[in-house]
Amino acid sequence: MTRYQYLADLLAQRIEQGLYQAGERLPSVRTLSSEHGVSISTVQQAYYLLEERQLITPQSRSGYFVTPRKAAPPVPAITRPVQRPVEITQWDAVLHLLEARSDEQTLQLGSGMPDVGQPTLKPLWKAISRVAQQQDERLLGYDTLYGLPELREQIARLMIDSGCQLGADDIVITTGCHEALSISIRAVCQHGDIIAVESPTFHGIMQTLRGFGIRAIEIPTDSSSGISLEALELAFEQWPIKAVVVVPNCNNPLGFIMPEHRKRALVTLAQRFDAAIIEDDVYGELAFDYPRPITIKSLDTDGRVLLCSSFSKILAPGLRVGWVVPGRYFDRVLHMKYIVTGSTTTLTQMAVAGFISQGYYQPHLRRMRITYQRNLEIFTRLVRQHFPCGICVTRPQGGFLIWVELPEAFDSHRLNAELRDSKIQIAVGSLFSASGKYRNCLRLSYAQTCTDKTERALAILGAAVERAMQSCSPVHELATASNDWGEGRASGKEQR
Amino acid sequence: MTRYQYLADLLAQRIEQGLYQAGERLPSVRTLSSEHGVSISTVQQAYYLLEERQLITPQSRSGYFVTPRKAAPPVPAITRPVQRPVEITQWDAVLHLLEARSDEQTLQLGSGMPDVGQPTLKPLWKAISRVAQQQDERLLGYDTLYGLPELREQIARLMIDSGCQLGADDIVITTGCHEALSISIRAVCQHGDIIAVESPTFHGIMQTLRGFGIRAIEIPTDSSSGISLEALELAFEQWPIKAVVVVPNCNNPLGFIMPEHRKRALVTLAQRFDAAIIEDDVYGELAFDYPRPITIKSLDTDGRVLLCSSFSKILAPGLRVGWVVPGRYFDRVLHMKYIVTGSTTTLTQMAVAGFISQGYYQPHLRRMRITYQRNLEIFTRLVRQHFPCGICVTRPQGGFLIWVELPEAFDSHRLNAELRDSKIQIAVGSLFSASGKYRNCLRLSYAQTCTDKTERALAILGAAVERAMQSCSPVHELATASNDWGEGRASGKEQR
Ligand SMILES: Cc1ncc(COP(=O)(O)O)c(C=O)c1O
Ligand SMILES: Cc1ncc(COP(=O)(O)O)c(C=O)c1O
Repeated sequence: MTRYQYLADLLAQRIEQGLYQAGERLPSVRTLSSEHGVSISTVQQAYYLLEERQLITPQSRSGYFVTPRKAAPPVPAITRPVQRPVEITQWDAVLHLLEARSDEQTLQLGSGMPDVGQPTLKPLWKAISRVAQQQDERLLGYDTLYGLPELREQIARLMIDSGCQLGADDIVITTGCHEALSISIRAVCQHGDIIAVESPTFHGIMQTLRGFGIRAIEIPTDSSSGISLEALELAFEQWPIKAVVVVPNCNNPLGFIMPEHRKRALVTLAQRFDAAIIEDDVYGELAFDYPRPITIKSLDTDGRVLLCSSFSKILAPGLRVGWVVPGRYFDRVLHMKYIVTGSTTTLTQMAVAGFISQGYYQPHLRRMRITYQRNLEIFTRLVRQHFPCGICVTRPQGGFLIWVELPEAFDSHRLNAELRDSKIQIAVGSLFSASGKYRNCLRLSYAQTCTDKTERALAILGAAVERAMQSCSPVHELATASNDWGEGRASGKEQR
Repeated sequence: MTRYQYLADLLAQRIEQGLYQAGERLPSVRTLSSEHGVSISTVQQAYYLLEERQLITPQSRSGYFVTPRKAAPPVPAITRPVQRPVEITQWDAVLHLLEARSDEQTLQLGSGMPDVGQPTLKPLWKAISRVAQQQDERLLGYDTLYGLPELREQIARLMIDSGCQLGADDIVITTGCHEALSISIRAVCQHGDIIAVESPTFHGIMQTLRGFGIRAIEIPTDSSSGISLEALELAFEQWPIKAVVVVPNCNNPLGFIMPEHRKRALVTLAQRFDAAIIEDDVYGELAFDYPRPITIKSLDTDGRVLLCSSFSKILAPGLRVGWVVPGRYFDRVLHMKYIVTGSTTTLTQMAVAGFISQGYYQPHLRRMRITYQRNLEIFTRLVRQHFPCGICVTRPQGGFLIWVELPEAFDSHRLNAELRDSKIQIAVGSLFSASGKYRNCLRLSYAQTCTDKTERALAILGAAVERAMQSCSPVHELATASNDWGEGRASGKEQR
């Protein structure tokens, strides 16, 4: 990234955060130049860039001003799921989402696919070629149950950034995070048991519970700070909960990073009720701030945390390389690993190990963090521009997923059906609830760089939402919604 | 294969089958030459080869005679497992076997690894390189739940040989046969259910039942014709059996191919008791006789057969590419596929599809069939030579696994421990029973070409078996064993 781009991003962020308010005058070119130790022309280029992005407006002779625009929509209020264990439904809707994947004509705004088109990922192809050229017969044979030692060593090293001091022998390689979650859940739970989950939560986790006949109790979750520990404690007191599954870093779908003190409190709570914690860190490395947030695993003192992750969101999901750090459940996880897939594909493990050991991982990760952060800025601007008032939108702290909450009566299933003709796919909110709640919500992805096509899609989406809101919302709901983006409302609560 | 090799193999087979008896004079060179339409020198070369293999002995002026030697040991009698559903144990022993895999110093006589060193497999590396060179971004993304269409089409075509008329849409790609079995079992059964299995049966199947809390009822199985349908019928009458899992073609570990009329009868029986059939065909293509035996799936009229297979035994297990044809259980299998691994690695799927579509599959398969058949001939000769009398040995009809039954009191666990110092690994028989039966049996692999090392290992193994038999067998057992290979005994029954 060039200096002026860096400076532009910094300023954009400050505008986004409200440090410079709408209509406010920005510092002069000279001031910024001396403040940041860059040349006058660098500052000018940064300002041109921001002007292009419509974030600032020049006024002759008096400098640059923050462009007046709609204020940021409020974030969703804490969720209020059903307060008892339920059987999981929603498979049909998940299947529908998965099947849309293969339709190349459709803009996949609902998918969990990362951007795999960046140049920093190219060396991965070379790593694969190199493995094929070596013709190492070991790659054709069964791998050990644990996975390739060289890959496990690399992972142990990467995980230092998340606060974990691990050896290669603490890690078991899996076929993506899916397998890691599946064998972890099955290692700590049996048919008929109860597991606590964030609400909303990733549909893969939910469907795994369903597949194993485990009931879910959905815990209220705040879109800024994560699972409600108070509600979780109450649930622990009321039900024999075996484990809690959380995605604490760059949560899917809400985008929050759970504050460290809450992570600590969660461990204490799990200890008190002797429950396991299954931590899904699949987006953890993609936190916008550096250094990345710590894992709950790093706070684990008695091996009750099973950490699940993969390279699917950072490198490429098609590789199907993930891992689990099972703590005290190591033996049971290993048994499940054996019966579920026997061992993991060696070729892709070797390619990933090569990619990391040759130093390509960190530059790629850095690039993806910056890319997604910039995508988010553009994406939220477009959402603001094209969506009607009266909605709530999350403020992701990493990853590439955003959650939009519409008035209660809104039906995202109907919206999705409507959008099919326009070749746009969203993820309906009910996918993320055990019992089909959140029909009034949608999850969108900003993984792909915004193009004209994205903008058109968001315009269509926004118009459809507006139409649907007008036809479905009872009058009193529209009435309570302010005529701007809920500006002035302390929270989105009255919307629910 | 050259003509003289072909002729030599043919004659060796006839000797093996007893068509030419020990001490009998073989046809003259001239007779064979005109009978087979080959030159005199071809016949001579074939005879030299057989002489080298110590199968025939020249006698000056009067031609070649079949070398007198020990008769073939009898095959094991039908098994007699516990006649009620049991919980599965033996995980420790399985883990021990799996961990020995990674010890490169040890001769892996107990492993299920195919020979991946044959030149006909080389194009697979090229197929991988080609995929890497294309840099097809589709390979980095999530595959569909079903698997790559081009691979499914190739598999549908291959399966015509097994009597199956399938479309690509009937097939779901899996991470090896392990995942195929795992999701099939889970799709038809719940915690607490009962499944009938052959006894002995592949430990992977057994451990999957254990992992899902399913009980196994082990059905007596004959080493020539497979699962006893009479015993299975009785079991169906007595217990609420949900499904039966069989490996009907080139069974692991017994090596039989279930006769077609018994396959038909099994389908009828399953229909009568409304049970599912899970058919594991992972060795089916490796039957020595051509055309290959049909699958039970090909006889399925109402979709109750779930066929599971993979390329692990024919190409390479490190690829982790398998498949399932789930019949009427398609939706449930798909759900389990989603929760267990999400989707399958795209790269290896693409490489296998390329390998097949470029015409490399059939030549490789032909070579492997011939190679394993020849290995078997040499291997059984060495077993005869080095093992003591009083044992039973299977006569595999395909694949690369052989089952040796020693007197009842023999302990293969102790033998395995003893062999560790000699760097030899066998598979103990108890791995193949839900309840730890068959401690007196071992499974050996003849996948790798016999070398001096193999011969030395079999000599050590034979001597250890002999010592163990002398020290462990009660006198009456030794007394009933004949002083040859049980020649004259109709079956091995009195041994058990
Ligand atoms: C929170 C979360 N966990 C796990 C996964 C699955 O990861 P993988 O593709 O490695 O199986 C996803 C992907 O959608 C996810 O969002
Ligand atoms: C009968 C049988 N089924 C399945 C498997 C596992 O196959 P895969 O390596 O494709 O998972 C084996 C391998 O040992 C086997 O012997």
